[in-house]
Amino acid sequence: MTTEYKHIGHGRKLIDGLEKITGQVQYTADFQTARLLHAKVILSPHPHALITSVDKTAAQELPGVVAVFTADELPTAKNTITSRNSAVLAVGRVQWVGQPVAIVVGESEAIAADAAELVWIEYEPLPAVISLDEAIQHGTPQVWPNGMPKEGDDMSSLHARVEAGQAVVGDKPNNMIGEVHFERGNVAEGFAESDVVIERTYRTSMVHQAYLEPHAVAAVPDPFGQSLTLYTSVQGLYGVRDEVAKLVGLPRSGVTVKPMAVGGAFGAKYGIYDPLVAAVALALRQPVKLVLTRSEDLLSTTPAPQTLIHLKTGAKKDGTVTAIQATIYVDNGVFGFSHGGIMSLLMGGYYKWAHTKLDAYEIATHKSPVGAYRAPGAPQATFAVESNIDDMARELGFDVLEFRLQNAAEGGDPSGVGRPWAENIGLKQCLERLKIHPAWANRQPDEQIGIAIGGWPTAVGTSETICRVDTDGKVRVNVGIVDISGSKSSLALVAAEAVGVHPDDVIIVQDDSNGAYGPNSGGSMATYSTAGGIHSAGLEVRQQIQQLAADHFEAAAEDIEIVNGQARVRGVPDRAVGIGQLVEGTRWKRSGPGPISAAGKSAVAENAPAFVAHFIKISLDKVTGVVTPLEYVTVQDVGFALNPLLVDGQLQGGAIQGVGMALYEGMVYSPEGQLLTGSFMDYGLPRVDNVPKVEVIQVENPSPHGPFGMRGIAEPPITAAPAAIGNAIRHATGARLTELPMRPEVVWRALQ
Amino acid sequence: MTTEYKHIGHGRKLIDGLEKITGQVQYTADFQTARLLHAKVILSPHPHALITSVDKTAAQELPGVVAVFTADELPTAKNTITSRNSAVLAVGRVQWVGQPVAIVVGESEAIAADAAELVWIEYEPLPAVISLDEAIQHGTPQVWPNGMPKEGDDMSSLHARVEAGQAVVGDKPNNMIGEVHFERGNVAEGFAESDVVIERTYRTSMVHQAYLEPHAVAAVPDPFGQSLTLYTSVQGLYGVRDEVAKLVGLPRSGVTVKPMAVGGAFGAKYGIYDPLVAAVALALRQPVKLVLTRSEDLLSTTPAPQTLIHLKTGAKKDGTVTAIQATIYVDNGVFGFSHGGIMSLLMGGYYKWAHTKLDAYEIATHKSPVGAYRAPGAPQATFAVESNIDDMARELGFDVLEFRLQNAAEGGDPSGVGRPWAENIGLKQCLERLKIHPAWANRQPDEQIGIAIGGWPTAVGTSETICRVDTDGKVRVNVGIVDISGSKSSLALVAAEAVGVHPDDVIIVQDDSNGAYGPNSGGSMATYSTAGGIHSAGLEVRQQIQQLAADHFEAAAEDIEIVNGQARVRGVPDRAVGIGQLVEGTRWKRSGPGPISAAGKSAVAENAPAFVAHFIKISLDKVTGVVTPLEYVTVQDVGFALNPLLVDGQLQGGAIQGVGMALYEGMVYSPEGQLLTGSFMDYGLPRVDNVPKVEVIQVENPSPHGPFGMRGIAEPPITAAPAAIGNAIRHATGARLTELPMRPEVVWRALQ
Repeated sequence: MTTEYKHIGHGRKLIDGLEKITGQVQYTADFQTARLLHAKVILSPHPHALITSVDKTAAQELPGVVAVFTADELPTAKNTITSRNSAVLAVGRVQWVGQPVAIVVGESEAIAADAAELVWIEYEPLPAVISLDEAIQHGTPQVWPNGMPKEGDDMSSLHARVEAGQAVVGDKPNNMIGEVHFERGNVAEGFAESDVVIERTYRTSMVHQAYLEPHAVAAVPDPFGQSLTLYTSVQGLYGVRDEVAKLVGLPRSGVTVKPMAVGGAFGAKYGIYDPLVAAVALALRQPVKLVLTRSEDLLSTTPAPQTLIHLKTGAKKDGTVTAIQATIYVDNGVFGFSHGGIMSLLMGGYYKWAHTKLDAYEIATHKSPVGAYRAPGAPQATFAVESNIDDMARELGFDVLEFRLQNAAEGGDPSGVGRPWAENIGLKQCLERLKIHPAWANRQPDEQIGIAIGGWPTAVGTSETICRVDTDGKVRVNVGIVDISGSKSSLALVAAEAVGVHPDDVIIVQDDSNGAYGPNSGGSMATYSTAGGIHSAGLEVRQQIQQLAADHFEAAAEDIEIVNGQARVRGVPDRAVGIGQLVEGTRWKRSGPGPISAAGKSAVAENAPAFVAHFIKISLDKVTGVVTPLEYVTVQDVGFALNPLLVDGQLQGGAIQGVGMALYEGMVYSPEGQLLTGSFMDYGLPRVDNVPKVEVIQVENPSPHGPFGMRGIAEPPITAAPAAIGNAIRHATGARLTELPMRPEVVWRALQ
Repeated sequence: MTTEYKHIGHGRKLIDGLEKITGQVQYTADFQTARLLHAKVILSPHPHALITSVDKTAAQELPGVVAVFTADELPTAKNTITSRNSAVLAVGRVQWVGQPVAIVVGESEAIAADAAELVWIEYEPLPAVISLDEAIQHGTPQVWPNGMPKEGDDMSSLHARVEAGQAVVGDKPNNMIGEVHFERGNVAEGFAESDVVIERTYRTSMVHQAYLEPHAVAAVPDPFGQSLTLYTSVQGLYGVRDEVAKLVGLPRSGVTVKPMAVGGAFGAKYGIYDPLVAAVALALRQPVKLVLTRSEDLLSTTPAPQTLIHLKTGAKKDGTVTAIQATIYVDNGVFGFSHGGIMSLLMGGYYKWAHTKLDAYEIATHKSPVGAYRAPGAPQATFAVESNIDDMARELGFDVLEFRLQNAAEGGDPSGVGRPWAENIGLKQCLERLKIHPAWANRQPDEQIGIAIGGWPTAVGTSETICRVDTDGKVRVNVGIVDISGSKSSLALVAAEAVGVHPDDVIIVQDDSNGAYGPNSGGSMATYSTAGGIHSAGLEVRQQIQQLAADHFEAAAEDIEIVNGQARVRGVPDRAVGIGQLVEGTRWKRSGPGPISAAGKSAVAENAPAFVAHFIKISLDKVTGVVTPLEYVTVQDVGFALNPLLVDGQLQGGAIQGVGMALYEGMVYSPEGQLLTGSFMDYGLPRVDNVPKVEVIQVENPSPHGPFGMRGIAEPPITAAPAAIGNAIRHATGARLTELPMRPEVVWRALQ
């Protein structure tokens, strides 16, 4: 990769890598303060039941127990439960195995855990609907017979109803709590003019983000209960702050969020337990910390949904795709979430379909509520559409890569929701690049290989940053985003370049919610939405220093250059002055410029969709059905890589996470609604000994809007893996897998 | 008082008053963190001695003791001791009773305290010089026979010397470690043409700042000892940060200072114990907290110096002052400090002396090193000069107020160090205002009353501030100054005025040393040096909001007014939109303005000297010598009072502190160098039952440089009290007191 920059675009390792591998980073679990209490949640053992009685006596009598709370004793008691976040504690009934019902607070974690065993809760089980396939059938129990509650609804009346077998108006699926529909052209005509039509049903499993660090949050209230500070593992400060404030009844200014180091998030860390811990701390007017166990985390957070996709696609003999029709069912668990739109956008948007009809339904079941998980809906949608595409190419006798290249969407083409893609998208470039890669170009007929494309529209937010130069020459950059995947280590390069210092002399300061505003670290937008503001602030600071140096050297400001933290007159490198020394001179200077600092803002005009083309070579044991990934090549349009080394890491990690989703991972519920994969002994994650080496090819197709041509890069890498592996199995065996994960038994069955 | 402003200039009570009186404010003593250890210092019992052995065995064997350190085991071991801050622990010898010699670290405060009793330190006493009068005589022991050490000196060689009786070159006083001399005109001529000349020797005692909260600091290092965070009771962030970094050998960027609430400081809280606690925490790589007891604080911090002033002044029959000649000896204790300059500035600067000769000597003794204390040197200098002035007026038959008025310095007149006063100083205005006050105007011959003037040049620093509007309409203002005396509660009015919100909707955020830069809260400069930047940032934010509102209402930005947090088109008050709602609209707006915020800077061109005229009425019991203050009127040129209510509080507090210095307070050392007033049982502070009601008159004589015409106001109020009380005693009895404090026995003696 070539770059005109000195620091930007050059790979540098993580700023905090050493801290992390040596265990010195402070996670929320490490948080301590005076009078800190420890909480333990009690989770529902039933998928659907009335809570008939709660006996706290024995627990409260245990020495060291401070309190046992149920929903009605907390400041959140009056809220309507409309979402996972607002389901602080169950009110009257439980709706999934894992729903928090009560919380015990003690002087130590051990005491709280012991006491939790002594809380006796009686339930009256109610009919539950667990399976997505059953949930959509009329006549099965309904999770929300009167529709999802809205804020302000009276929950008690909702709870009293008998909730099975009621009819839904029209031909909508049972348990539908949301729907979106997108139609363009006429798919009937499209299929009529097609020479090949493939119609299949795909199923993907509920999968968990499986971050290393379970959810953890500590809340420190003021003694009057008028404000509190959250120390929390979170992806963004302001959404959580506002949600907690609303739920506990404080003004936004009464809640301060101090983000701690985050041990992985992948979309799930937006304050799930923050309202509960905040409410408990306010009720006790004492600091409280909650750290989930792995099992509690798997039972009670927000995994990615199970999906059921009926997909029909057509193409002509000349290799032109014609029509796509899909009916998508997304299993939301108990509460509402919106995957249908983004799944439609991608399924109808990767290729130049003339006719599209996409109908997506959000379905409620008595399972864990779902949430965002890296490129939400994309791997599932891509698995379906890229399997069909692969088969159509094969049936029409086309090379699977050429077929995709011929039909791939370009800038301005309509996406699946009608809205056109931004200009200059890089899907074709990725395919072209993969086409000339030796792994593809030199492929042999007997190799077990597959390819797939994927992508993600990426998001945009606004941000603010303050750039300051200190008397020791260090450049401090205050930001409001949480560094989860290395954003600090990329943004430091931008500041270093703009001001004219070495990246080691840049300190990225993560402000709390009383500081610089930044968007969530999600949607691949954190770095994309922050780099521009840092650059402009850095350039302004550079100008301020040039003026100081001009005064110092009695030269013109435009003749000053700043190199490695030293200011000098161009052409006179021997006489240089440290920028810290210049700043020192301003500290007490009357009528001077004041402190050397500048504010930068970013409000990027457009998102920058990023696409991938993935190649995988597997080894498939036809006797056992075991699929072993051998070689992976991931080609991605990154726009412009601020820090290519870290971009490589993101692209490798995403591919491997996709391999996990393809081959191993699935949250399995028993027909009775019990989670059978409630620990990492049962939930199959990819391990280092069964993931391939991943080669990363960064295509730099600059976004016209992103700073330096950047694109958000974190989500696209996960999108194509399941489809690529499915296509490799198809290529190797002729069998088309339609279900994730493609565990050995599934593969073996398909081969029979 | 009249003001054109809606909020600025209107008295509002302290923002954090409720928090403070209800005990919810977190002081450093309240700081807790994981693995926090507790330290106890061991102080020298000798004023001068060699340390011959330290036996830690018994202490180290006590369960719960983590470490016992002497100087050579800390990261500070190699530093030369040149100041109180660098005297982290004694090296080889001790030089005052109270010098820290060792430090014990344990798992609790009680364990550390118990273990400190078990450390056996042997000393070999050396000759010591305690009395200032003796110290300046040749032939008495010398504290620094080779001069004060400089950074880099080899302390061990300095320690080995015998240190008594060596001659000093010239006629300088013995134990001199600093001197300043200022001469203008010819004092001999001046005295020759005088009709009255008064020559006296004044003595003032060492007094302690006696803040409510003793020194306290906690240091939290990273596990590698490469950085640390200080949680500390401190007057400013950056000086302490830089000093600690230098002394412990870290880069400045390796030290973060998080200022905690400060329970009083008065000039003494600039990190006296921060280097020691930092060094211990680095050595142990574990968090450590030290909280001094009151006695430890009195023994080992930096009180105000004892002074000895030979003063000669002259005046003519027509009431014109002529010449002033002073020789000032300041007892610095062990280390250097500079009071001579400011004392000269004031003594030669209050009045229009034609001839001045001021010679000031900083003297070392084996007593506690001294430091800054609210208007350092000013009450002492003012006591001397205002006593002489009073007597000259009386001897010449002038009214003491008219005499002062006739001679008082005006803007541009030379100060005692030659440099002229800034334009527009308010000394005469204060006297004019006092003159018409009923307490003075209606005075009766038999009233025991006195007056005196005082003043302080005040200081200036630079500052930076960030002003932001949140989605709830709250205005946040980040500053780098520590709020000790109510600065937040004044600055909030500036932000409210500038943005257009109610002061309750302003939150002043005190950044740590990774945030906005601000000067020390000392020298009466914090508010003075910050208000301008807040105002400009607030106005810029207001413009940003006006633009948002203009877009919202489809109106011109100049037609938008912002009232109480609501934006509206001028003349259409019924249609208004909350500024928080407007900000909410920017959060995700592509190509929008980004977050609503602005940076403001302040680098005021000039300081703004502030003067006072004080009146006191006392009741003097001639039998016992007891002086009871009855009524106090303090007139001060405040320039412009941002928050008059809080200015009143400062002016009352300063006057009462001055009453303490005048009548009660004094750190008394025995001839052997033991502090006899090592607790509040022995050190006499003014109590609420023996201070008068203080009436405050704020004269608003705007400074041409201060924002809104402001002046720094915190130091002047202490300067005049001792002189005013001395003058009241003179007026009541004819006796001239020349020694502080004027305790009953001193007064009684003077009356005999």
